[in-house]
Amino acid sequence: MQFEGSSRKTVLNELKKTCLQDKRYDDGKILCSMCTKPHPIAQKAYMMFLNSNLGDPGLFPGSVNLEKEVIDQLSSLLHGEGCKGFIVSGGTEANLLALLAARNMARIAKAEVILSESAHFSFTKICSLLNLKPVYATLDSDFKVDASSVEKCVSQNTVAIIGTAGTAELGVIDPIKRLAQIATEHKVYLHVDAAFGGLVIPFLHKVPNDFDFSLPAVKSMTVDPHKMGMAVIPAGGIIFRDSKTLDYIKTETPYLTDRYQYTFVGTRTGASAASVWAVFRYLGVDGFRRIVNTCMSNTQFLAVKLKEAGFKLVVEPTLNIVAFRSKDTRVLAEKLLQKGWFISYIPRYDCIRIVLMPHFKRRHIHLFLKDAIETQKL
Amino acid sequence: MQFEGSSRKTVLNELKKTCLQDKRYDDGKILCSMCTKPHPIAQKAYMMFLNSNLGDPGLFPGSVNLEKEVIDQLSSLLHGEGCKGFIVSGGTEANLLALLAARNMARIAKAEVILSESAHFSFTKICSLLNLKPVYATLDSDFKVDASSVEKCVSQNTVAIIGTAGTAELGVIDPIKRLAQIATEHKVYLHVDAAFGGLVIPFLHKVPNDFDFSLPAVKSMTVDPHKMGMAVIPAGGIIFRDSKTLDYIKTETPYLTDRYQYTFVGTRTGASAASVWAVFRYLGVDGFRRIVNTCMSNTQFLAVKLKEAGFKLVVEPTLNIVAFRSKDTRVLAEKLLQKGWFISYIPRYDCIRIVLMPHFKRRHIHLFLKDAIETQKL
Repeated sequence: MQFEGSSRKTVLNELKKTCLQDKRYDDGKILCSMCTKPHPIAQKAYMMFLNSNLGDPGLFPGSVNLEKEVIDQLSSLLHGEGCKGFIVSGGTEANLLALLAARNMARIAKAEVILSESAHFSFTKICSLLNLKPVYATLDSDFKVDASSVEKCVSQNTVAIIGTAGTAELGVIDPIKRLAQIATEHKVYLHVDAAFGGLVIPFLHKVPNDFDFSLPAVKSMTVDPHKMGMAVIPAGGIIFRDSKTLDYIKTETPYLTDRYQYTFVGTRTGASAASVWAVFRYLGVDGFRRIVNTCMSNTQFLAVKLKEAGFKLVVEPTLNIVAFRSKDTRVLAEKLLQKGWFISYIPRYDCIRIVLMPHFKRRHIHLFLKDAIETQKL
Repeated sequence: MQFEGSSRKTVLNELKKTCLQDKRYDDGKILCSMCTKPHPIAQKAYMMFLNSNLGDPGLFPGSVNLEKEVIDQLSSLLHGEGCKGFIVSGGTEANLLALLAARNMARIAKAEVILSESAHFSFTKICSLLNLKPVYATLDSDFKVDASSVEKCVSQNTVAIIGTAGTAELGVIDPIKRLAQIATEHKVYLHVDAAFGGLVIPFLHKVPNDFDFSLPAVKSMTVDPHKMGMAVIPAGGIIFRDSKTLDYIKTETPYLTDRYQYTFVGTRTGASAASVWAVFRYLGVDGFRRIVNTCMSNTQFLAVKLKEAGFKLVVEPTLNIVAFRSKDTRVLAEKLLQKGWFISYIPRYDCIRIVLMPHFKRRHIHLFLKDAIETQKL
């Protein structure tokens, strides 16, 4: 195989052209993503730490400190002072580490995990990897997991119960407090997937209900700064209540500066932690609250206007996600996609789902509403 | 929990201070890492694609194309024209996807994987995740896996054989051709972990032996651009010979722009692919060859000088890794670490291991030799 080198200018020009083929969050047309344009301070911080590798922590003590501080802040935000954790590649790795810990602690041959029907699809992936049998609990009429169904699913083989604080499709918060009672009663590991909601719920005017480490039964949480934390991808977060839990996920390393590794990914950039750190330090709690409140007021605005126009909401929004139906939702979704709106059509709920991320501004909502209403009439 | 926001200037100043605590490749003291300072063009390209998310490919068709082109180039370099693959988080995810495919294809209850004693520690992690039993083949006197030992390890339960092209500790290349014969004869999946060697071996003056897709039995290969490819972390690579293999690792996605996902990580930045693409396009094969040859001539130089000074090499270097012993190697290693040299001491071979990455220049080698020789005499 032979390929020629090129000048710096040629390479960068080609990349610029290619980059224009990608959709841009700033255009206000991406309504289907739980990611957004990283905060400018996150981008700046990321660039400063491009050399860093937290897979070899002895070489990068500065980056190690940033990760520790960020985990402390996330823990504290989720009422888990003193928890331990890592900035990882994303929610899938975070959820994997939690289920790996639960599986390895329980040491049950035919291990089962209780999932809500609305749990993130990464759990399917993870159960398949870990040879865990997913047992699905049903939803109640508000699309939250039905706690009595969860209780019925508990068996001798249950190694973990998963609750979700902000489902990917509808932004619903499971009754974590009830799940905590069940977990305590049956002595089962409880993991809360707050990949999306973990950086929304703490900043709401009124936190809907207990969902985090304030409940002693919650053993670990996923919270992804590269979603509503506006950090640069990759920046997932996994937090464990007890540092002892880490013993169940560790691997010995033969040639690195640290003897044990706890994350799934080996070589991993410290730039992720730096980018999360920068957003936290720059915005503070007030800054986050401001951004979340704008997203929530946009959400309310969109929800009200959709209802006024005759659309049906699947559920009243708790977080910044709106799911709605029309007479023929699938057809409407296809037409809106053709018009350049990147929305999700969710077959199992027969709905269009809009995630109101910080890049989706009020002016974009007006345009979207206009198109949705016009298109529905056709 | 309350924390205050700060000005942009404060945040960036604090980050600058923290960054100085991290060690720098440019100082020429990091001799233990298989990563290096990313190439300037890789950094530039990475920054251009910070918004991109290959976990939602419908939104980022430009990034998708870059990933395809890079996989084509890597495949072609490894004699695998037409292969399929992905730029992933690193070697661990790459090796995971290969073993997941092998496990799911074989559907054997008590599945076993044949590993060399010198296989990367990520395989221990992966076998534990996937409930695979690792069966270890012994090494020959050159620290290559002993093919007859591999053959003896084959059983009804074997789902894969792993060969390594460039072991992490000694840079040794297993006899992949022999492993291919065994894999063919026993109809077993063969995966080659060329995380490090895959971007060294093709550029050597004389390729030591067949190690890649030129051997039909090789079903998949790991090759990590964030090691000798000088790309920005995260940039691992997994390449599968047959696109049919992808069916064994796919997960259905309910709300994304693509119906299936094949990588372990869900949300994943397109900046990784852009950074790999840029290095390939800028350097071409000639540029890579130049850099690899410099690393190899530095390796030879260090090896010769160490021998002249009375040190014993564990093995003659094949790739840009030198492993050596002194009278009391562990003590020497500790003293060198105290002097600020980041070297690895490998207990199982009782040796000091030096990886001669592009950031380790001839002038650094002179300084290192001086310190090593002086320290040994003490």
